[in-house]
Amino acid sequence: MTPTETVEKFIQAWNDLDMATAFSLMADDIVWEDVPHGAVQGIPAVQEKMASFPPMEGCEFINHHIAANGNVVLTERTDKFLAQGKWRAIRVSGTFEVDDSGKIAKWRDYFDSAAFDREFGDLQS
Amino acid sequence: MTPTETVEKFIQAWNDLDMATAFSLMADDIVWEDVPHGAVQGIPAVQEKMASFPPMEGCEFINHHIAANGNVVLTERTDKFLAQGKWRAIRVSGTFEVDDSGKIAKWRDYFDSAAFDREFGDLQS
Repeated sequence: MTPTETVEKFIQAWNDLDMATAFSLMADDIVWEDVPHGAVQGIPAVQEKMASFPPMEGCEFINHHIAANGNVVLTERTDKFLAQGKWRAIRVSGTFEVDDSGKIAKWRDYFDSAAFDREFGDLQS
Repeated sequence: MTPTETVEKFIQAWNDLDMATAFSLMADDIVWEDVPHGAVQGIPAVQEKMASFPPMEGCEFINHHIAANGNVVLTERTDKFLAQGKWRAIRVSGTFEVDDSGKIAKWRDYFDSAAFDREFGDLQS
């Protein structure tokens, strides 16, 4: 797979709620940074972070644009999540760095924390 | 110029405080959107928006990553501005759409409004 194909497969896995595939595409020491909120490192820390959110009942990452330069893949997206019976959306621009073994080693998402709070702030964890 | 070269020239123009060159690379009907804050359309509106900020004494857009897919160019940057005697920095991920005449028709920057307020909130206009 090219780095772009890896990222597209990763996004498709989220949209399928197929987290086994999503985790299989992460490097063990992945750094996942939500730029406004901070970074976690390693798949266990990613899983812990995800467990701190309410269960995801649906997911649709709409990938408006994707472009690669070597192993770095940049995306412009709208990420939609169904949680506690309501769809929530956030506009995101995200960078993925794919390592030589084809795993995602870095994932950084840029978005507005105020927009995030408006969409997700009512969720009860 | 390729779309990537157009964007690199545009960023260099900002860093040189050479706004004549920067404006020459914008389509007349450019849409410039700071995603958390909203969009303006057309060079006069861009100029009006820029005039609402305090004078820029220095500018350094550090382009960490750039990647193109057709006429769409995605960037991951740290944008630094010297204003009222102090350097201020904001982490940004931005999309540029270059039209067939080689001008920037769309510019969308994603960043955190809270980080923006921390860095720029003390400025007196």
